[in-house]
Amino acid sequence: MPRYKLTIEYDGGPFVGWQRQGFGASVQGALEAAVKAFSGEDVTVHGAGRTDAGVHAEGQVAHIDLARDWRADTVRDAINAHLRPAPVAVLAAEPVGAGFEARFSATKRHYRYRILNRRAPAVMSRGHVWRIPRPLDWQAMAEAAPRLLGRHDFTTFRAAECQAKSPVRTLEVLIVRRSGEEIVVETSARSFLHNQVRSIVGSLVLVGEGRWSADDLAAALAAADRTRCGPVAPPDGLSLVRVDYDGCGA
Amino acid sequence: MPRYKLTIEYDGGPFVGWQRQGFGASVQGALEAAVKAFSGEDVTVHGAGRTDAGVHAEGQVAHIDLARDWRADTVRDAINAHLRPAPVAVLAAEPVGAGFEARFSATKRHYRYRILNRRAPAVMSRGHVWRIPRPLDWQAMAEAAPRLLGRHDFTTFRAAECQAKSPVRTLEVLIVRRSGEEIVVETSARSFLHNQVRSIVGSLVLVGEGRWSADDLAAALAAADRTRCGPVAPPDGLSLVRVDYDGCGA
Repeated sequence: MPRYKLTIEYDGGPFVGWQRQGFGASVQGALEAAVKAFSGEDVTVHGAGRTDAGVHAEGQVAHIDLARDWRADTVRDAINAHLRPAPVAVLAAEPVGAGFEARFSATKRHYRYRILNRRAPAVMSRGHVWRIPRPLDWQAMAEAAPRLLGRHDFTTFRAAECQAKSPVRTLEVLIVRRSGEEIVVETSARSFLHNQVRSIVGSLVLVGEGRWSADDLAAALAAADRTRCGPVAPPDGLSLVRVDYDGCGA
Repeated sequence: MPRYKLTIEYDGGPFVGWQRQGFGASVQGALEAAVKAFSGEDVTVHGAGRTDAGVHAEGQVAHIDLARDWRADTVRDAINAHLRPAPVAVLAAEPVGAGFEARFSATKRHYRYRILNRRAPAVMSRGHVWRIPRPLDWQAMAEAAPRLLGRHDFTTFRAAECQAKSPVRTLEVLIVRRSGEEIVVETSARSFLHNQVRSIVGSLVLVGEGRWSADDLAAALAAADRTRCGPVAPPDGLSLVRVDYDGCGA
């Protein structure tokens, strides 16, 4: 059975999240319905990251197995034709070997979180930012962020319902930068815990508000205690930007 | 009567345009209703540019006269509170002299047009780009664009219903650049004719498709004949980015 790697963009706003659930529209379900509509096959779309309700993706990756050997561009265009008008699009489809697993072959995941830091409500970026009216000290956030880099027990920044076996992760990138009226947080790791990025962003905002020092952030991490986390940032600002793979499957 | 300069952002998607009309929701109408709700006054919101239905603004400018001398920040926040949930926001309010006229004092208007040039439909930028699936030669567009710079009779690139007395305008900036999957057209002038930017962009796309040469574009301009214009680009991709003023009112 030919396997295809799909690179997918979606607006998470109207969805219950990536994953099919007992209720509501999921991104995975929308894709599976579109694949069925064009190929007649019942497939499972296996995603690299299970984004939560309201979280977006510019570069989610998934794989599917199809019975027939379609041209990759046909797979992309046919799925897109049947996805309409859902805010989901397949940016690219590529044939990959049977060893390629969107989730388990991934070597790095890149997320971006956008904070709109101004008095006026979000308009053009509505649903895609966390609007915070009070001015944040983004430089303090940028200086504190590196305290979370490296290999740690991230229990503090992990949802209670997280199903990962281990709370240990290695944070490779955590950058805070200013872009006009926005404060952008970029982070990369091989994998993340459930709600890890939003928990980290919410805690960094406490630093930006002057309520936490960099030492407070480091102490919250060291405590490995969920109750020490700042407020979890809303999903709107978060996007799965890219997933990396090594070797022939990439 | 104190006069205030307002800088305004809006998503033009749900509106019949900037200007109040006999039917449908206008941006001007939404602002006037919000001013009335907070101040109790019936005001006219005078805008710098009358954007069409579906056209956006990141930096529209308008002025209003209020009976009472409010703090400028109060004006901004109070209008925003009453605009909700319309996708319109006042970014800034400033007191200005009675000589300031949003429309007539403007010395330059800056527009940006976004083309999403890819096979997959727009998702994150839906409603804010013109999606063109076939690859455009953006460098050919960039090379042809300067042929329209300067002072010309722009009859070719002017809507039949344009009410300006003269079709002569001076195009000061017309840049075509690539930004990832997008081709972005930026243009500036003291003022524009009705549909001028969208007419120019539609004609530049003919160049990008290889159907027109730079000479064809120049000949269309020189003809001063509306029937020589390319297809008018859809409103979605267009945004009024900024309006400049000289002197004390700015």
